[in-house]
Amino acid sequence: MAERARRGRGGGGAARRAERSAVSFETAKFIERNIPNFEVLTEEALEIIEHNAETVLEEIGVNFPDNPAAIQRWRDAGADIDGERVRIPRGLARKLCATAPSEYIQHARNPDRNVVVGGKNLVLAPVYGPPFVRDATGGRRYATMEDFNKFVKLAYMSKWLHHSGGTVCEPTDLPVNKRHLDMLHAHMTLSDKPFMGSVTEPSRAQDSVDMCKILFGDQFVQENTVMTSLININSPMTFDDVMMGALEVYAQNNQACIISPFIVGGAMAPVSVAGTLTQVLAETLAGIAYSQLCKPGAPVIMGAFVTSIDMNSGAPTFGTPEAAHITYGAGQLARRLKLPFRSAGSFCGSKLPDAQAAYETANSLNMGLLSGVNFMLHACGWLEGGLVSSFEKFVMDADQLGTLHHLARGVEIDENAQAMDAIREVGPGGHYLGCAHTQANFKAAFWKSDLLDYKPFETWEDEGARDTQALASIRVEKMLGDYQQPPMDPAIREALDAFVAQKKLAEPDSFM
Amino acid sequence: MAERARRGRGGGGAARRAERSAVSFETAKFIERNIPNFEVLTEEALEIIEHNAETVLEEIGVNFPDNPAAIQRWRDAGADIDGERVRIPRGLARKLCATAPSEYIQHARNPDRNVVVGGKNLVLAPVYGPPFVRDATGGRRYATMEDFNKFVKLAYMSKWLHHSGGTVCEPTDLPVNKRHLDMLHAHMTLSDKPFMGSVTEPSRAQDSVDMCKILFGDQFVQENTVMTSLININSPMTFDDVMMGALEVYAQNNQACIISPFIVGGAMAPVSVAGTLTQVLAETLAGIAYSQLCKPGAPVIMGAFVTSIDMNSGAPTFGTPEAAHITYGAGQLARRLKLPFRSAGSFCGSKLPDAQAAYETANSLNMGLLSGVNFMLHACGWLEGGLVSSFEKFVMDADQLGTLHHLARGVEIDENAQAMDAIREVGPGGHYLGCAHTQANFKAAFWKSDLLDYKPFETWEDEGARDTQALASIRVEKMLGDYQQPPMDPAIREALDAFVAQKKLAEPDSFM
Repeated sequence: MAERARRGRGGGGAARRAERSAVSFETAKFIERNIPNFEVLTEEALEIIEHNAETVLEEIGVNFPDNPAAIQRWRDAGADIDGERVRIPRGLARKLCATAPSEYIQHARNPDRNVVVGGKNLVLAPVYGPPFVRDATGGRRYATMEDFNKFVKLAYMSKWLHHSGGTVCEPTDLPVNKRHLDMLHAHMTLSDKPFMGSVTEPSRAQDSVDMCKILFGDQFVQENTVMTSLININSPMTFDDVMMGALEVYAQNNQACIISPFIVGGAMAPVSVAGTLTQVLAETLAGIAYSQLCKPGAPVIMGAFVTSIDMNSGAPTFGTPEAAHITYGAGQLARRLKLPFRSAGSFCGSKLPDAQAAYETANSLNMGLLSGVNFMLHACGWLEGGLVSSFEKFVMDADQLGTLHHLARGVEIDENAQAMDAIREVGPGGHYLGCAHTQANFKAAFWKSDLLDYKPFETWEDEGARDTQALASIRVEKMLGDYQQPPMDPAIREALDAFVAQKKLAEPDSFM
Repeated sequence: MAERARRGRGGGGAARRAERSAVSFETAKFIERNIPNFEVLTEEALEIIEHNAETVLEEIGVNFPDNPAAIQRWRDAGADIDGERVRIPRGLARKLCATAPSEYIQHARNPDRNVVVGGKNLVLAPVYGPPFVRDATGGRRYATMEDFNKFVKLAYMSKWLHHSGGTVCEPTDLPVNKRHLDMLHAHMTLSDKPFMGSVTEPSRAQDSVDMCKILFGDQFVQENTVMTSLININSPMTFDDVMMGALEVYAQNNQACIISPFIVGGAMAPVSVAGTLTQVLAETLAGIAYSQLCKPGAPVIMGAFVTSIDMNSGAPTFGTPEAAHITYGAGQLARRLKLPFRSAGSFCGSKLPDAQAAYETANSLNMGLLSGVNFMLHACGWLEGGLVSSFEKFVMDADQLGTLHHLARGVEIDENAQAMDAIREVGPGGHYLGCAHTQANFKAAFWKSDLLDYKPFETWEDEGARDTQALASIRVEKMLGDYQQPPMDPAIREALDAFVAQKKLAEPDSFM
């Protein structure tokens, strides 16, 4: 597959030569869990929630507004139609979901960066969507395309990040109707990791597919998944025609979508965990079933963006125990559907990359690993409830993602790991620093941060008593300074440039 | 039991009147888990580790230096003695451990604060041992008795903290041979939560017991456990005579001890998880067996203080995945021994209560809950690898402990939690904020921080754009300002004062 992928990408001699001369930045393979999932719902609770979700679909139904084609598809499939309301007979949605694959490969232009989504795997992708950026020197400000490019470079340089993501920040200095072209161009040319497509208009989804055809080759895109894009459901139970239009484009082109309720508990879903899970399941069943009506076998991920709310201020709250319960439970429901699962991330409500941000983020990242998440969007860089992409927090979180890789390895129990010879060699009162087993194993034994402070107090003080944000600022600059663009066949680059230029000329700028 | 406890504490009319007039600060009940434990070791791995631990005890043995009485006890029990080396025949230590209770009540002078240690419970106690303190205004400095008192007050005021702890910081301004008297006096008079005794000399353990007899009554102490104290093992496999002397005093008085290896992996134990677990199990089996030789049935906790090391700097590292693997595994081993388990805490290597501190602490706290820890020492306030008790971090961590309480509740699935009426009432496109189910449930639905920032950006900026440390500084001052001493029978107070005064006169000060 890798070999075919390489040939498929139109790489001639020039591309191969460029590849050989490239500076390589290490990227860890996506996580393959060798640990169990943590499960909070009993079999009885799962069955109640599954029963109730079918009741919601059958009795209450879901809305597909302004979308006669979708209504027709549902009618043909046997749903009960009443205007824009679609009531789905018990069991039908689940049956339709069965054609969705339980795992798929998303190809990157560098086949070493391909990811397998589903099963025991966890793929980590950066923050998505914030209109603002923040760094220590510039403070909080509207994001620009220059910021966007920097985040794509940081993601490319981040060892524990497997995916380049999508809207790593919203480039507000570019026209709304054209910025998707520049964003995709950046992911394609500044990185060689897999990426996401545009969902803000069906035509922009089509542009994303067309640009992928240039990058990967026409036939390769028809035969393989090269994008995973984010389709949000307007919870409760509303399927926006723009998002559904983008989903239709991607499904018909065999490109993957995350189909994801976006829920602040108590506002877009009931204030209880079991009630929220019922709605999450009903919504994802309907959305995924619809993707399979568009194209049976289209790759999809069952998503669950869920968090709680501070009922005093109305602010969403992150890293909370209730969000954890919902995510653990949603993971169980996804596994029973045999579908890849997306949830969790570097979520926090804090305005700064401070202790609050880190507590909330660590709570969510750990819970994401243990809940069996297969695709974690927002795995680094999220700040202020998703309003801000933070440069410092991006590298702080990206460093912490290393702990998930090591945790997921589980515990070795072979003879070397048992270390009986070391215990014999050292004996009571001795120490292990110099013993043969330690010398042979220490390099790979413990996860080590590339960012955090492990220095003696006096050294740390002499160097300016820097906190984590200050260390992260230095790391951001260092990574951007070290960045080298991955090589690309010049013919492909020219074709991409030409496509973007031609598209930009085709219609006037819009900032609405 | 509570009623007997009250009578046992010598409370006459004055005490009862004082109790009625007290301002009450809410303390949550210790955590009773309604969620499963997370387990990383297979049955096969557990059996290998258990087999290897017995091999360590039998072939290598453990040292009980400078302790002829201990050696005699081991000889009488059937161990193979060679000088200070004790080799324990396969199965003997485990057999001796069987008389230790699987759970016990630690009584507090306020019976509402009694804790049950073991089973599905988790008791949270503050940081233990640091010689330094830090706060935002005073920086890092040697700890004094004044600092100690402040931490006891903060622990008393902290809703999610069930235990007053022991050496919340080391009062370095007091003589080494007398400071235990002031520390115990502070726990007894400034708080009514359960506490720990002194272990730095057997005579100081005896002083702790004697002071408890004043506080609780003579007979009550003989019949009930009123202290849980920390006995560290000198890993690898060495049982210090001072610590063992303190253990003997406590065991013979039915007082509980945590028997705990203190391990930085790669230095005091093998650099592998399975090897460290083998040593942890061998050491705790030997230590707990010894406690039962001193007094069959003495309450004990199987402890595991374990962390990893940065092999470049030699610094211990915290919140790491390897520490998590060891803790998850040690929890499994403790449950197979049917013993209460102590591990995890607010561990971090950071010099400041910043993002590093919070990532590392959140990693450890979450892991502690899921690994089935029954007694979590250091649950708040730990900074700089345990060198520093931080005032700000104390209240930051103590606030986060609320998330563990809510996580442990698990997921309700009754009709109210299913919320089908709410989903019907709201329907597609609606919102839940005003619906009947939300109104009826929102107050108890979501955990809410008492410290973190949930404000709108503009409000937060107007109020000074404070980070978590700044908010915590304010909270420390507020809590100390609100503090009111819990009432105490004046006769008991006088007797405690007199005991301390008399003991202080009995020998010269020593600062060694």
